[in-house]
Amino acid sequence: MQRILSTQLATHVGRTVTIAGWIHRRRLLKSVAFLIVRDAEGLSQVVVTEPATRALLEELTEESVVQVEATVSANAQAPGGVELTGPAIRVLSAVRVPLPFELHRPALSASLPTQLAHAGLALRHPVRRQALKVAAAATTGFRAALTEQRFVEIQTPKIVGSSTESGANVFRLDYFGRPAYLAQSPQFYKQLMVGVFERVFEAGPVFRAEPSDTVRHLAQYTSLDAEMGFVTDHRDVMAALTRTLSVMMATVAESAGTAVPKVLAEIPAVHFTEALRIVGAPADEPDLAPAHERALGEWALREHDSEFLYVTGYPMRKRPFYTHPDPALPAYSNGFDLLFRGLEIVTGGQRLHRYEDYVAALQRAGEPLEPYEGYLDGFRYGMPPHGGWAIGLERLVARLLGAANVREVTAFPRDLNRLTP
Amino acid sequence: MQRILSTQLATHVGRTVTIAGWIHRRRLLKSVAFLIVRDAEGLSQVVVTEPATRALLEELTEESVVQVEATVSANAQAPGGVELTGPAIRVLSAVRVPLPFELHRPALSASLPTQLAHAGLALRHPVRRQALKVAAAATTGFRAALTEQRFVEIQTPKIVGSSTESGANVFRLDYFGRPAYLAQSPQFYKQLMVGVFERVFEAGPVFRAEPSDTVRHLAQYTSLDAEMGFVTDHRDVMAALTRTLSVMMATVAESAGTAVPKVLAEIPAVHFTEALRIVGAPADEPDLAPAHERALGEWALREHDSEFLYVTGYPMRKRPFYTHPDPALPAYSNGFDLLFRGLEIVTGGQRLHRYEDYVAALQRAGEPLEPYEGYLDGFRYGMPPHGGWAIGLERLVARLLGAANVREVTAFPRDLNRLTP
Repeated sequence: MQRILSTQLATHVGRTVTIAGWIHRRRLLKSVAFLIVRDAEGLSQVVVTEPATRALLEELTEESVVQVEATVSANAQAPGGVELTGPAIRVLSAVRVPLPFELHRPALSASLPTQLAHAGLALRHPVRRQALKVAAAATTGFRAALTEQRFVEIQTPKIVGSSTESGANVFRLDYFGRPAYLAQSPQFYKQLMVGVFERVFEAGPVFRAEPSDTVRHLAQYTSLDAEMGFVTDHRDVMAALTRTLSVMMATVAESAGTAVPKVLAEIPAVHFTEALRIVGAPADEPDLAPAHERALGEWALREHDSEFLYVTGYPMRKRPFYTHPDPALPAYSNGFDLLFRGLEIVTGGQRLHRYEDYVAALQRAGEPLEPYEGYLDGFRYGMPPHGGWAIGLERLVARLLGAANVREVTAFPRDLNRLTP
Repeated sequence: MQRILSTQLATHVGRTVTIAGWIHRRRLLKSVAFLIVRDAEGLSQVVVTEPATRALLEELTEESVVQVEATVSANAQAPGGVELTGPAIRVLSAVRVPLPFELHRPALSASLPTQLAHAGLALRHPVRRQALKVAAAATTGFRAALTEQRFVEIQTPKIVGSSTESGANVFRLDYFGRPAYLAQSPQFYKQLMVGVFERVFEAGPVFRAEPSDTVRHLAQYTSLDAEMGFVTDHRDVMAALTRTLSVMMATVAESAGTAVPKVLAEIPAVHFTEALRIVGAPADEPDLAPAHERALGEWALREHDSEFLYVTGYPMRKRPFYTHPDPALPAYSNGFDLLFRGLEIVTGGQRLHRYEDYVAALQRAGEPLEPYEGYLDGFRYGMPPHGGWAIGLERLVARLLGAANVREVTAFPRDLNRLTP
């Protein structure tokens, strides 16, 4: 199909061109009708005066797909300074049912559940569409930043023989007659691959059978995972993550045109015990509550002019068994979270790297060794000190765009109640 | 950890440096011992004469992880013209069990099942490692080529409410008490997203419950999917795919240093009926057998000097219900396969785009409409003529490297018998 895009019209003034797209809006005035056609890049205004064409237009509804052959005319009043006149309209796909909601207003008035039920339609709205563009740009930036830092992209199994992060919140499936699970993270595999490439990353789906409906949780989300070997401790991991975030934000600004927060060359970091003091929580709290995270976000902005804050040294008892303890304070870990505007969007840290340490950690946790054998096998054959992180893409994008619910920035969310479309 | 890589040694002659990596090999001669250390970039030779260091080395085994502080000395006999002398060796992670196979020989002598059982170790071998680097480069090239052609990256659900490609070969799972399935392809979602971005792509896992063990099938593989709107027919899709393949091959050559076949600006294409004639098959054969594909691969090389060949116009009765028929010959489709060295590595084509056509196609196929409602909903609201393709990444890489089995180029394959590691 020989067509030009809406953004190319201005360079074709006086010529006959073909455009194609969706009927975004029709304005049927007495003496003239305006047809606004939307394509991937923007809108075009088509002026209709000829009675037969107007009659066709009156019968069509919004979102029908049309091809328009017309002359490009300069008109300072038209959007972009050009419009199309004398059109011949060909209908590629006619909409024959009422739309469940209108798409041409600045905001979608339909409720989120209605939008999600008709996701293929709702995502055409500029606000919903833009969120997906931001997600795509963030992912591109993630890969570029890591490739530049010598990380190699990997693909890992999403069907696993034993649950990894914990026995709870895992989807069970029938694998050729045997029980199997959907991977809650690529954790074990990315660690094994440190033995191969030293530094690896993966941007892929992970699965959590979250039993409750919250604005922050999805049953499937995109995890931006990285893992790196030959680190001294978690601070090397945080430095690589900070660099990565900074490239991600620059890519979002450039490719998606969204305003992004500045990423300081050194993002402020507070130890968990200090974080409790800052928010006024008792010193024996084992974890940070959402309200604590929000208070820390405000503190970081006030004290350090940073929208990002690392919290390091979470208590070992609240971190997974593969977490490396702080050698100086073994009750605390070399694990960290990254808060963005008061919400945890990244979890990371240094991991155990010696086989003996894994065996001891699993025994301490009261876990049987057997389900972990394939995983532990890799640690028998020489693994360097290493660590990594996982960024929750949808959380990051939601926070970046000020969306209250991660479902607003996910194309086809999966949750307790949603399995379609 | 302050270290330099093996490839940086030559610029540090005369200086004391720290390297780190795996013990690739030890050669314990009478008066001197050589330690070969492997890191992400290559090998370093360490010369050991000091008795205490030699004693340490004798106790260590291959694949132990060490850090070596030593002086860089020029030596024309050493690999890369440099070696490390006067080393102080620190063990980061000692291997205390015998390795199941040796890694320092040009080929892995262990059987494929043994390699796969110890995948974390086997993948450290240069041959296995290189296959994954080629896969990463091909994926990077895929994304770059499509981004350049205005495609937007998307993430789609891997858990679906109804099976898509067919009822067979689908993994069933328990989704909060309801039955659900692992997506066999992002087909429906990428089509819906054509309504949003016109052109989209996704590189992600897909799942097939293949009931048989073949060298070409995996239960999970990486599908490089693209879909584009406003096409005239399948030939526009083939042109975009040809361009994409050409960038993928160039990226593999550049980033992974692997020899790649040339991709002609126009890859030869034969119609299905012509393909049957070429291989001497009866004119009423409904599909091409693997032997036919091999014969066509030889024919394309001989007649067109091309290792790639498009076969177009497969009979409608062998293609999925969303396939667009050839308007001139409705028993044949606007679908195509791409053969690479006689193996099908891509399936693609033009799809139906009108709601009425989907309803008619499903009714003809004897399928109930109800499971497809969420999918079909998108076609009620205006979809342009469109088409796309899916490349099987592991098949492409196996064919490129001459690997007989896709498992040789997959990090942690999943099949009828394999769920770990």
